[in-house]
Amino acid sequence: MEKLQIIPLGGMEQIGMNITAFVYGESIIVVDCGLSFPEDDMLGIDFVIPDITFLKENITKVKGFFITHGHEDHIGAIPYVLKEVNAPIYATRLTMGIIENKLEEHELLKTTKRKVVKHGQSVNAGDFRVEFIKTNHSIVDAAALAITSPAGTVVHTGDFKVDYTPVFGDAIDLSRFAMLGKKGVLAMLCDSTNAERQGFTMSEKTVGRTFDHLFDEHKDSRIIVATFASNVDRVQQIINSAYKYGRKVVVEGRSMVNIMETAAKLGCLRIPANTLIDVEQIRNYPDEKTVIITTGSQGESMAALSRMAANIHKKVIIKPGDTVILSSNPIPGNEKAVSRVINELSRMGANVIFQDAHVSGHACSEEIKLLYTLVKPKYAVPVHGEYRHLKAQAAIVAELGIPKENIFILSSGQVLELSKESARITGEVPCGSIYVDGLGVGDVGNIVLRDRQRLADDGIVIIVMSKDYESGQIVSGPDIVSRGFVYVRESEDLLEGCRQVVMDVLDRCMHNHTGDSNRIKNLIRDEAGSYLWKQTKRRPMILPIMMDV
Amino acid sequence: MEKLQIIPLGGMEQIGMNITAFVYGESIIVVDCGLSFPEDDMLGIDFVIPDITFLKENITKVKGFFITHGHEDHIGAIPYVLKEVNAPIYATRLTMGIIENKLEEHELLKTTKRKVVKHGQSVNAGDFRVEFIKTNHSIVDAAALAITSPAGTVVHTGDFKVDYTPVFGDAIDLSRFAMLGKKGVLAMLCDSTNAERQGFTMSEKTVGRTFDHLFDEHKDSRIIVATFASNVDRVQQIINSAYKYGRKVVVEGRSMVNIMETAAKLGCLRIPANTLIDVEQIRNYPDEKTVIITTGSQGESMAALSRMAANIHKKVIIKPGDTVILSSNPIPGNEKAVSRVINELSRMGANVIFQDAHVSGHACSEEIKLLYTLVKPKYAVPVHGEYRHLKAQAAIVAELGIPKENIFILSSGQVLELSKESARITGEVPCGSIYVDGLGVGDVGNIVLRDRQRLADDGIVIIVMSKDYESGQIVSGPDIVSRGFVYVRESEDLLEGCRQVVMDVLDRCMHNHTGDSNRIKNLIRDEAGSYLWKQTKRRPMILPIMMDV
Repeated sequence: MEKLQIIPLGGMEQIGMNITAFVYGESIIVVDCGLSFPEDDMLGIDFVIPDITFLKENITKVKGFFITHGHEDHIGAIPYVLKEVNAPIYATRLTMGIIENKLEEHELLKTTKRKVVKHGQSVNAGDFRVEFIKTNHSIVDAAALAITSPAGTVVHTGDFKVDYTPVFGDAIDLSRFAMLGKKGVLAMLCDSTNAERQGFTMSEKTVGRTFDHLFDEHKDSRIIVATFASNVDRVQQIINSAYKYGRKVVVEGRSMVNIMETAAKLGCLRIPANTLIDVEQIRNYPDEKTVIITTGSQGESMAALSRMAANIHKKVIIKPGDTVILSSNPIPGNEKAVSRVINELSRMGANVIFQDAHVSGHACSEEIKLLYTLVKPKYAVPVHGEYRHLKAQAAIVAELGIPKENIFILSSGQVLELSKESARITGEVPCGSIYVDGLGVGDVGNIVLRDRQRLADDGIVIIVMSKDYESGQIVSGPDIVSRGFVYVRESEDLLEGCRQVVMDVLDRCMHNHTGDSNRIKNLIRDEAGSYLWKQTKRRPMILPIMMDV
Repeated sequence: MEKLQIIPLGGMEQIGMNITAFVYGESIIVVDCGLSFPEDDMLGIDFVIPDITFLKENITKVKGFFITHGHEDHIGAIPYVLKEVNAPIYATRLTMGIIENKLEEHELLKTTKRKVVKHGQSVNAGDFRVEFIKTNHSIVDAAALAITSPAGTVVHTGDFKVDYTPVFGDAIDLSRFAMLGKKGVLAMLCDSTNAERQGFTMSEKTVGRTFDHLFDEHKDSRIIVATFASNVDRVQQIINSAYKYGRKVVVEGRSMVNIMETAAKLGCLRIPANTLIDVEQIRNYPDEKTVIITTGSQGESMAALSRMAANIHKKVIIKPGDTVILSSNPIPGNEKAVSRVINELSRMGANVIFQDAHVSGHACSEEIKLLYTLVKPKYAVPVHGEYRHLKAQAAIVAELGIPKENIFILSSGQVLELSKESARITGEVPCGSIYVDGLGVGDVGNIVLRDRQRLADDGIVIIVMSKDYESGQIVSGPDIVSRGFVYVRESEDLLEGCRQVVMDVLDRCMHNHTGDSNRIKNLIRDEAGSYLWKQTKRRPMILPIMMDV
């Protein structure tokens, strides 16, 4: 019997960019297809998508993309990947709705086969049969996948939590996980994001109760609530509280408006009649009768809340006494940006509430134990999270009695080969990160980023001169132009000193009959660079340009 | 009677850079003189110091600098400020020791008057009398100041916490605060850093107990502990545990070695004989008999722990089984860097402990209440912290019954004028941030930073050509050179397209007899810029250079 191969093509070294290939014989299926947001050192990059060389090289085998839920780190790369590897997409209702918005934007809607799958339903794809299982997460319609091939069944949880009292739809289908466990599961790939946190993640419904309390407590002021655009349940609960306390609701932020429209169309969001009003109408209602639901809870500089905080939002002006609720926790790396928004809002006199109005969408340690205990996989593959989180899940799993040699923390590109008898890493396939910057996909690489970093740190000094092609004489320049280096008007002596250094180099070259332009440019780069370093302890990029005339 | 003026010259809008002027009649004293670390958008900046125009304009009145403790955000700007306003420095023993290291580096030791002050001791300076009062903080020898002028007494807490069982020296002198309160205090400037946190900050001693437990639990492995270089008490406790469990201690990281030497010399750190060993000797001892104390607990990229994690430390190589304790919490903004270090260490097989081995050095809400209740100031001026923290302290103070109109959240430069009868903001003095980049102080301003940001985002495209001075003909070029924009080899068409756009501009100018170089350069900038935007959705800096030959 052939073996099953599980190959994460991204997402293991870098948060986001979740994409995993399952290979059996002549069939490949792909679970999720996400993007990453750039790290601090990826200057100017908009986002990062996975290198799918492996899929391109095996394009005829690819039977489909199976998507667990509609978050960017699971769907964001779909349009880019589809342009190279077109295969059908399988997803639940809201997930597909969000994907379709993306496909439309990229003019891929007509050329992409799509099938909406219900929880509990299965899909055949080559040698695979994939069942979608109900889970709970911070977006409606999340699914785990049970992926069966002749080698056995593998469960991929996607991002999940256990919510016994979800806002919309059913609780996670624990019985189905139990039945799969009973029949025998080869391996489980399980969400590790919160593996370092003890206990149980609270139900989304508890946030609704918090909103009720906060609406009750702040009866006399306008309320502004910021949360994730995609958290439809959260938005639903804000609307519920608004309705209960007789407030009209304004929605601000393009991404939120889009997802709410999709969710409402698909019946995942229920908005009572006469509740939503346009932002233009807000002036017709007293403050204490309105709620603004907005994006920007992560301090994203262009999002609606940040613009309100910076007083550059065109339609909403923060007033003293406004109550602003941040219904989210800062994602690691966003802490400072969030704090800046809180400070700005506070300075404008708003009362900012940033605690207790949020619960996570990911399983904590006890939920992870619950799932492993039901599914009883032979092999454990912690996924979704930083290395520290994967390692924390590995420790939990070991505690549950799964032998250490059956737990695999993979790197992107590694091939885990599985059968009922054995599991081991047998090789590696090409993988990596492709930077998207504006319209460019992959035209910014490490050299460009290194240059950007240097330019960012100390700017650039351009030394330009013209050389007579025949005589080799410098006929114009050297002129010195700098950007991002020093404030030029106050540094004329420094730049003149640099010019003298360059003149000396040119004189010496003349004297020594050094005519080779590259050699002269290298000498200029070295000597001007070391002069400027000595004077300023900075290392601007030095760019000598010699024109032949 | 004259009024007292309190003027924060920095530290109110930006964390760090604490410096406050107290003005009475012809006397000015300055409390603290710190620097800030750069915000994310201050590309290439090393640190930020306060604009002290106000002190320079009143230089003859400045009687001295009174320093509360030896952290960079309270002392870091001293060498820069002293070069412009030389006045005596007053501080406690360890604080002065650390300041002297700085002065020596800047060759200011000989020219600076200094006086070491004991807790409980007072200093006369012009119309002021300043008493140093014992407090506790995450560095030894911290002091609050009671600043008395004919207008009354103002208490400045500095950074503080209440530690009834400090590791070194006495507990905070609560009785003295009570006595001052009894006599009557005009105003208190009080540390707000932890004002959002409920309850009481734990004693530093509790961390010592944690170390004992951790050393007991990890008897068989090497232990590496990372903490703040300046937290002498923390280092003392690590040494105590090491000694107790029979381990030799290696100290890695220049800043930590320096502060430990100073602290040991002044008797603030007691190292048992035969405990310290050099890093070179570590190979002579089994792993389970050694501890490495190191810098880098904030993930600072050049610090010792980060270098170990990146496997580029020259002398310490992380081994599987090593126990690494992060004895600190990430300062806001450092979360991601700390997480990167944890991930890298985990990947190398180290067991990383990053919880419960730290306590804060700042007072929580109950300690703030305690101090206000003892001191009973008429006016409250929350200081030290982001705006949200100042506001949280204001709320606490209001709860204690101080009328709202007696609570002042100041901005940097604002003049708070006080007397027993009244307090109000009466004006503003010049203030601001001066960027230090390498040797340059103030030669990088907003224009340079804006350029750096643009260079960082999208790079630079330089368009260079030579024009015959007499005929106005272009005799060489246009040549296009780019850096940090695109990967050139794969973008030849794009850059050639750009060259064509520039040629068109030049042809048109020729045809229209447009000879003005600036006008031609502007046209090139606009048209090449919009061409590249259309092609790439990026906005590199466009720099046309025209040489006359």
